[in-house]
Amino acid sequence: MSMPDSERYRLISTLSGEAYPLDRLEEFAGSGESLEVSRVSSRQPEIHPGDHLWERFAGFLPFDEPELSVSLGEGDTPLLPSGAFLSEYTGSRNLWLKNETMNPTWSFKDRGTLTTMWMSRAMGEKVTATISTGNMGHSVAAYAARAGLQAVVFIPDFTPREKIMPIALHGAHIIRVKAPDYAAMKKQILEMAGRLNLRIVSGNGPLRVEGYKLTAFELYEQMRGEVPDFILVPVSACGHVRGIFKGYRELYEAGYIQQLPRMVVVQASNNAPLAQPIQQGKRVVIPFTQVDTIAEAITTGNPMGGDEIIDKARRFDWPAVDVSEAEILESQAALARAGLFVEPASATTLSALKKLIGRGTVKPAQKVVAMLTGSGLKDFDVFRHHDQQIHDCELHNMERTLEEIMP
Amino acid sequence: MSMPDSERYRLISTLSGEAYPLDRLEEFAGSGESLEVSRVSSRQPEIHPGDHLWERFAGFLPFDEPELSVSLGEGDTPLLPSGAFLSEYTGSRNLWLKNETMNPTWSFKDRGTLTTMWMSRAMGEKVTATISTGNMGHSVAAYAARAGLQAVVFIPDFTPREKIMPIALHGAHIIRVKAPDYAAMKKQILEMAGRLNLRIVSGNGPLRVEGYKLTAFELYEQMRGEVPDFILVPVSACGHVRGIFKGYRELYEAGYIQQLPRMVVVQASNNAPLAQPIQQGKRVVIPFTQVDTIAEAITTGNPMGGDEIIDKARRFDWPAVDVSEAEILESQAALARAGLFVEPASATTLSALKKLIGRGTVKPAQKVVAMLTGSGLKDFDVFRHHDQQIHDCELHNMERTLEEIMP
Repeated sequence: MSMPDSERYRLISTLSGEAYPLDRLEEFAGSGESLEVSRVSSRQPEIHPGDHLWERFAGFLPFDEPELSVSLGEGDTPLLPSGAFLSEYTGSRNLWLKNETMNPTWSFKDRGTLTTMWMSRAMGEKVTATISTGNMGHSVAAYAARAGLQAVVFIPDFTPREKIMPIALHGAHIIRVKAPDYAAMKKQILEMAGRLNLRIVSGNGPLRVEGYKLTAFELYEQMRGEVPDFILVPVSACGHVRGIFKGYRELYEAGYIQQLPRMVVVQASNNAPLAQPIQQGKRVVIPFTQVDTIAEAITTGNPMGGDEIIDKARRFDWPAVDVSEAEILESQAALARAGLFVEPASATTLSALKKLIGRGTVKPAQKVVAMLTGSGLKDFDVFRHHDQQIHDCELHNMERTLEEIMP
Repeated sequence: MSMPDSERYRLISTLSGEAYPLDRLEEFAGSGESLEVSRVSSRQPEIHPGDHLWERFAGFLPFDEPELSVSLGEGDTPLLPSGAFLSEYTGSRNLWLKNETMNPTWSFKDRGTLTTMWMSRAMGEKVTATISTGNMGHSVAAYAARAGLQAVVFIPDFTPREKIMPIALHGAHIIRVKAPDYAAMKKQILEMAGRLNLRIVSGNGPLRVEGYKLTAFELYEQMRGEVPDFILVPVSACGHVRGIFKGYRELYEAGYIQQLPRMVVVQASNNAPLAQPIQQGKRVVIPFTQVDTIAEAITTGNPMGGDEIIDKARRFDWPAVDVSEAEILESQAALARAGLFVEPASATTLSALKKLIGRGTVKPAQKVVAMLTGSGLKDFDVFRHHDQQIHDCELHNMERTLEEIMP
């Protein structure tokens, strides 16, 4: 695989506009600003025929020869109509669910992990590392295995054992750090990585964002060119919401669509460093030190690159919503009652939509896509909060038990 | 949705040839023989253009107006080249992995659950039931929720709590039976269901098998008409292996392919009521009373319809293989080292292939497909058997820990 062409692409700091070479190891500007892949030429890319999404949208991506042997078959996930039950639950008559739980490691992370691995392979790296306790660590470990790279995953010592297991089975080295402060641990890992020339893959890295763009391209095809009015995204590291929007923006700039979707930044009220300032009209992240929510996959105290999302929300009129723990549980159960078993973080989108419909921000007929980001199998602890209809019996009274519950 | 046309289709007992109407409630003939959907007309179906697999292969299916609102986006799963690592591990130079863990409830069951639900809806049923401790219960509960049916799932009282949780969250009634003997419980449930006019969905029901046929049609398209020499399937209830083969047989009869694949019946040595008699040249199931294997998803003592599989194995020269617990664990780890995290039952296929290559039954250059039937997230208990590379440290010695493991 050849290096992305640095004469045609470079990294741009999303707030200051400063430019960096594409093969830069650090995923953020010195000030903590997000970096973004930018085409040097002003010539717009085109969609071409091809069997694979990567081929059709190759012009939009900074990879000349995508190394398909590294792929695990990510993407190409269903876009489902919500059905009557969830339509009534949310108040939306035009709700679509993008089921990212049907990815190779059962979360949306896989799309961005693929492009990150391509970059690592192109740079001749032997090791790839990340800091994670969940979806990210699992995805990076799986793709590193597929790509023949050694994965190193840093985890805090409070990580539950069942989250470590898949990461370990994929052959990653797990460094379990006893650190009183998660933020301090993260900072020290990044400094150390700089010294050791080790790429620490983040959820908001510029190459990862290029992978998430494919979600927009896929939606564009699935909706036959129609653009949804709103796309609801559970947000923590910012890369996902940024990537989907960047994909749509590039389609817009290339003349394929005539409007942009409005992204909706969704967080848990217990941990809303972006959703709160956006709703309050503030310009910067409000850091959270307490990050205790059942929506574990979107816990983040002070997300790097968060200021950019707040800036975009202001410029493009993106709503933000934060939702309570009780609302998350209610929506998780509602989705399951419609056949979709998602992790709590994914369920936040439905509670958010309910609120936006209630506030009149979203009209019932407007076209809405909710991103279902990760599988419910990733988090079993949450079940103790849910009701269950379990009926115990023995063989001799089984028939009576059944008759009692038959409608 | 209209009833499948009973003038064009009927159920045929696969061993005796006896015919039954298509809307029959019992999924087996009185003697326990498998039933199979059979076209009355001798006119062969044709593949037609269409966006969806269901549309293209509608002529092969007994549903005139597939009710797509019941779909959760099942199927359309990747067919991945094994990669160099698994090629070396198995000795096969032409191994492909069909990743059924990327289905809506993360197992192959979903394909067959959809067609079962169509039948229930067509018959106006309000309740659908199954006996399961795992993938089947989860899939039926999810699709019943989507279809607006009440699911009832019978489980033995030894079922681990984490297997019950997803089933419960989808809104199923769970009847937990304290029964000393699983087979006796099953028998009594089937008798009771007959009296109460309740359909007990089994893993080997004729309508479910119609859903699994789609896997063959999908493989036919993904391989551009080429037929694999072997397809390895972990077998318990028999429906999966039967459905894939039926799909290929119908393509053969309709003139689309010129040869049939040889199916490989794979079971755990600890629980091999089909693989043992096939290997020994016997004609009937050898019942197992001890069914203790880590490949939980394929535990079965005396599978209904098993004699038919043994009969087919003889007629179509299907190999059978049983694999040890240690082999299953080794193959589960090998798949994870290649990026694929599957439940132990799925890993049996790789161990089986290794043996067949060793015996010379499969040549290294022959085209082989291994079915990866269910996600590794479905079974956490198995991890205690695996090695992990976990390195504990504190902030002050984190760098030293990292340096020690860097290649």
